[in-house]
Amino acid sequence: MVTFVSVLKYEQIKVNKALEHELAAMPAPLRDIVGHVLMAGGKRLRPLLTLLSARLFGAEGDGLYRLAVIPEMIHVATLLHDDVLDEAESRRGRKSAHLIYGTAPAILAGDALLAAASHRTASFGIPSLLTCVSEAVLMTAAGEAHEIALQHSLMHSLKEYIDIVAGKTGWLLKGSCRLGALYAGASEDEVEAVSDYGLNLGIAFQIVDDALDFADEAVTGKPTAGDLMEGKFTPPIMKYFEFLPNMDRERFREKFKSGGFSAEDRVRIAADIRRLGFDTEARAMADEYIAKAQACLDRLPHRFEQKVFREALEFVRNRKS
Amino acid sequence: MVTFVSVLKYEQIKVNKALEHELAAMPAPLRDIVGHVLMAGGKRLRPLLTLLSARLFGAEGDGLYRLAVIPEMIHVATLLHDDVLDEAESRRGRKSAHLIYGTAPAILAGDALLAAASHRTASFGIPSLLTCVSEAVLMTAAGEAHEIALQHSLMHSLKEYIDIVAGKTGWLLKGSCRLGALYAGASEDEVEAVSDYGLNLGIAFQIVDDALDFADEAVTGKPTAGDLMEGKFTPPIMKYFEFLPNMDRERFREKFKSGGFSAEDRVRIAADIRRLGFDTEARAMADEYIAKAQACLDRLPHRFEQKVFREALEFVRNRKS
Repeated sequence: MVTFVSVLKYEQIKVNKALEHELAAMPAPLRDIVGHVLMAGGKRLRPLLTLLSARLFGAEGDGLYRLAVIPEMIHVATLLHDDVLDEAESRRGRKSAHLIYGTAPAILAGDALLAAASHRTASFGIPSLLTCVSEAVLMTAAGEAHEIALQHSLMHSLKEYIDIVAGKTGWLLKGSCRLGALYAGASEDEVEAVSDYGLNLGIAFQIVDDALDFADEAVTGKPTAGDLMEGKFTPPIMKYFEFLPNMDRERFREKFKSGGFSAEDRVRIAADIRRLGFDTEARAMADEYIAKAQACLDRLPHRFEQKVFREALEFVRNRKS
Repeated sequence: MVTFVSVLKYEQIKVNKALEHELAAMPAPLRDIVGHVLMAGGKRLRPLLTLLSARLFGAEGDGLYRLAVIPEMIHVATLLHDDVLDEAESRRGRKSAHLIYGTAPAILAGDALLAAASHRTASFGIPSLLTCVSEAVLMTAAGEAHEIALQHSLMHSLKEYIDIVAGKTGWLLKGSCRLGALYAGASEDEVEAVSDYGLNLGIAFQIVDDALDFADEAVTGKPTAGDLMEGKFTPPIMKYFEFLPNMDRERFREKFKSGGFSAEDRVRIAADIRRLGFDTEARAMADEYIAKAQACLDRLPHRFEQKVFREALEFVRNRKS
């Protein structure tokens, strides 16, 4: 764990420098709004995955940072668009870009960032990198659309939840790992192993995130049970709904459909979920994907980067906020 | 002219078939909304430019249609996003996608189409194609953002107008031509000549479009003077504003700032613009870019496709709706 957090923090500095370089190359009318989100901090987990993956397979040098920023640019593009479509008020501690600059510039800034990420990818002259990046964008958008199609419905299954999560979060983490391996010229088996690692890491990450949605506000500093309002049928909510006596289900369903839970409802349901251990049970579901990711690591070279990949799994498992 | 229109109509059939193929490959949650706009008709001018350009430099075969759909996919992605950001109610005779399927799916569908276009581009294994495509997307978004930044302001110059138009319309027509030439392995000079042709064609196309905004509704079937409401400072409006006596300018400026023209205002101003010949003067500005595009054609091989390119300029010049 010590190593993972140190490496993450250490690399953030160089990743941020490379991101500033990309920002400076953006067309003038979009630079401010892109910068507002691109340079607002963030863990830079995706660039780290790309760096680790490229180095694991023998690539080296400072040029790697130009590669590593690609998934972060895509990630930030999706954040810009997500904030518009969720009508979110803040992001990474700052007021949402669309509320400062307007909806239209926010949409265009996302488009421009997607294009800039493709442009940077093309600059390496390796077509497989582009296939990797465009697939990740496509599957991320599809995952989000799938989620929206099922929003405010209690009818779908755990399998559908996992499909959504694999799309909206897993594919870009997969793509981040894959990008580094393809760049470094890893073998087909190795590319697949590190891609599967990223996908399973991403699924676990999102499951933990959805469990943390019911954590105590006093601990996380974030409003609790936002997913109830947004009508996202996540594992803790699935378990809670199953637990409800029949007589209470209809009322819950109505509120879930309309996002009509009061602040008191949310605090009470979140407390119930914690008391009944449904958030802990949800986290245990993440362990299944962490185990799959670990098995992928066994197929990879036993080098320093592989060790950091292993610690990343612990980081995700133990995340408290 | 006969040839251009025949070729356009003839190719539409094969282009539409190739677009249906791309649509079938879209992830399920987005297929309906993408199809709503992608298969709603449209001239398919951009695919035609790509086909002509590729063939002009010796490429052939049905595989070209897979290349030619790329700029149309990008175009439709921008339409999906534009309708959200303009809050448009209809598109190509159909109710806007975001009003049927929702804003969030419309944004995601645009993102997915951009990604699918990149994915298709990557499938050719030629990195320069990707640079071409991503640059076109980036510059289109920048042009639109530039326009929005100056929206509802009467303070900017003709030069800024041309910059906007070159961005929002010119770059993708340029990219459409460039894509075909790069694919066919044209020389650097030839690639530049056909790219410049496309850029100037695009600028002329948009200037004519902006002049047609003041045409008689009875002729075009489209509401007149929409640009007054949207606060777009186009050449006919520039000329009209210059023509206004000082005492009337302030009131015009106020209405332009707020988009507060009444239906009567719009019909009256459009009639004035036509009577004073400001729409015709604006179209004459397009001739300048048509002449530039013609000069580019002189640097290209004297083949059938070059003749069709020449007719495309006449088509743009004479467009009545």
